[in-house]
Amino acid sequence: MSLEFKIEARSGKARAGVMKLAHGEVLTPAFMPVGTLGTVKAMSADELKEIGYQLILGNAYHLYLRPGHDLIKELGGLHKFMNWDRSILTDSGGFQVYSLAVLRKLSDEGVEFQSHLDGSRHFFSPEKVMETQEALGSDIVMPLDDCPALPAEPERLRESVGRTVAWAKRSKEKKTRDDQALFGIVQGGVDPGLRKECLRQLCEIGFSGYALGGLAVGEEPKLRAEVVATMSELLPRDRPRYLMGVGPIEECLDAVRQGIDLFDCVLPTRNARNGQLFTSRGKLVIKNAKYAQDPAALDPECGCYVCRHYSRAYLRHLYVSNEILGVRLNSWHNLYYYRRFFERMREALVAGKFEEFYGEQKKVFASWEDQ
Amino acid sequence: MSLEFKIEARSGKARAGVMKLAHGEVLTPAFMPVGTLGTVKAMSADELKEIGYQLILGNAYHLYLRPGHDLIKELGGLHKFMNWDRSILTDSGGFQVYSLAVLRKLSDEGVEFQSHLDGSRHFFSPEKVMETQEALGSDIVMPLDDCPALPAEPERLRESVGRTVAWAKRSKEKKTRDDQALFGIVQGGVDPGLRKECLRQLCEIGFSGYALGGLAVGEEPKLRAEVVATMSELLPRDRPRYLMGVGPIEECLDAVRQGIDLFDCVLPTRNARNGQLFTSRGKLVIKNAKYAQDPAALDPECGCYVCRHYSRAYLRHLYVSNEILGVRLNSWHNLYYYRRFFERMREALVAGKFEEFYGEQKKVFASWEDQ
Repeated sequence: MSLEFKIEARSGKARAGVMKLAHGEVLTPAFMPVGTLGTVKAMSADELKEIGYQLILGNAYHLYLRPGHDLIKELGGLHKFMNWDRSILTDSGGFQVYSLAVLRKLSDEGVEFQSHLDGSRHFFSPEKVMETQEALGSDIVMPLDDCPALPAEPERLRESVGRTVAWAKRSKEKKTRDDQALFGIVQGGVDPGLRKECLRQLCEIGFSGYALGGLAVGEEPKLRAEVVATMSELLPRDRPRYLMGVGPIEECLDAVRQGIDLFDCVLPTRNARNGQLFTSRGKLVIKNAKYAQDPAALDPECGCYVCRHYSRAYLRHLYVSNEILGVRLNSWHNLYYYRRFFERMREALVAGKFEEFYGEQKKVFASWEDQ
Repeated sequence: MSLEFKIEARSGKARAGVMKLAHGEVLTPAFMPVGTLGTVKAMSADELKEIGYQLILGNAYHLYLRPGHDLIKELGGLHKFMNWDRSILTDSGGFQVYSLAVLRKLSDEGVEFQSHLDGSRHFFSPEKVMETQEALGSDIVMPLDDCPALPAEPERLRESVGRTVAWAKRSKEKKTRDDQALFGIVQGGVDPGLRKECLRQLCEIGFSGYALGGLAVGEEPKLRAEVVATMSELLPRDRPRYLMGVGPIEECLDAVRQGIDLFDCVLPTRNARNGQLFTSRGKLVIKNAKYAQDPAALDPECGCYVCRHYSRAYLRHLYVSNEILGVRLNSWHNLYYYRRFFERMREALVAGKFEEFYGEQKKVFASWEDQ
């Protein structure tokens, strides 16, 4: 079995689980830092371990283009290439083909696109994307899906669902490695009927886990939350559930309450590079002049390496001086914030106090002011 | 005593010493990584410790302008500000005022200049620069000197020597902190007579150590080597000797043989950012296509963290993808290379085998080819 999943505690629809993968256990709910190109930006693998991450995300589209999946395979796979011996989920690149590349031709066979790097032409079929991810050797692989930008016409959404299901089936048929788990991706935009139909067909095929894809692509957060609420009633209870590309910490909390187990987003690392840092009292913009002489830790309630050793004044100095160490420390702190928040959600679930935690945290978020 | 210096072994003019400073011992010969703005670019303080550095360099000119020495003092001094509890030498900024700022007016009183950051006007006197460094709290402080670009007219050099000596004297008179050691800086361009006269006058005043300044500012390396050879006969034998701003590893080896104890240069970190890496067989340009599929360590003979965990192929991938981790790992490796080379020089000195080491290493350098 490429993926075992055990639920250890529940609170309403929310659950605390343990996911066993080829490279070890992952406690859920879990947030995955995004390591698009074989590196979580500015961080070393050892630092991610020190923070406590057990699962990170890579991207098949990006690694296919640069440095190439065959090269990574020759060098012993993605884990070895990037010196990370814990688990990796690779996204198929379906989203990137639509959002980043120049889309040339979309058919039931696959998708022809031009690289965002050099304009070179490539063709992704579901089979090609499975081969790519088998070469990378990630622990969880995602099938190629048809991921339209929202809002989209009903007809386009219907087409996307049909194609996504057919491609998922072909992906499963193509799969050869026993040490990789394949997830199904539910498309259907913000149309509950289409989403349900997509999920029903995916469940008939059967996957190790189920992902809600095609969200965080332009729709209102409120509509997204409705999709999550609706689908969480229907997603198989014994399988991990992954809300792709989300996101804001408040939304993660709500989605965990709805029964989502896995998340990924560039938000903590991208915000870090822009100097926007998470604290227990709200987002802090480190370049603000008021921090120039501030000897306090970024977040006095945070126990991370950065908050234990550096002042806001130093972090601001690094930011305004454009020093790489600033990006490093900011990324470290934000990733720690996400990790610790997910850990606290799980602790509350295991202790049977999730609703209490949820209520308190909602109040905290409501009180947040930009710092 | 703010600086104790004991020589443990000699070989000809070369020496292995121990320098005791307020923040601990420094084994010499020693190379100081440059941490201009309170951070050795891309590196954390813990990583510098792991590599083995005991002494790093900061810069009074830069820190005076940004974030300001008074601010750093309020926050507990430079050590605390940057989370570095080992020793720091701060350069006075004399060199930067001439090379980086817009020089406005130079007189015996001091130097008026415009900031390279925002054009604001400032005035540095020897006293002001001492105050700045006392606020920073570095372990070794350098006096403001008059540092002309080379080649310079004899008259300009004579003026520079007179002024540098006068300023050194005023700096010593201004000095108040017992936990800081003040060095004298020898100017005089590549004129042996002027250099000797400058040193003679500095020795009359008396300093904790002596630096050869005003080199690596445009002169031929051969002329620089002659200055080092001449002056090394005359520099006080019981005091540490610092060759400022040098530099290339081959030159460091020659200068150590001449009896120099301390060095600083941006070369290992700057080259790292440009993807030029030191190996036991020569300089390696990591972006070269031939490393795209190379599973070997950067330098198979190197034991550093980077060489133990990453392939050339990965480092090249990070470089061409413009990933921050690439800059980090390259900087780590180059700084380790310098550190280890200096350690090997010292080991050879202590073992009484320096000449053997020197001869072998000269052959190695002669055999170096760009990789």
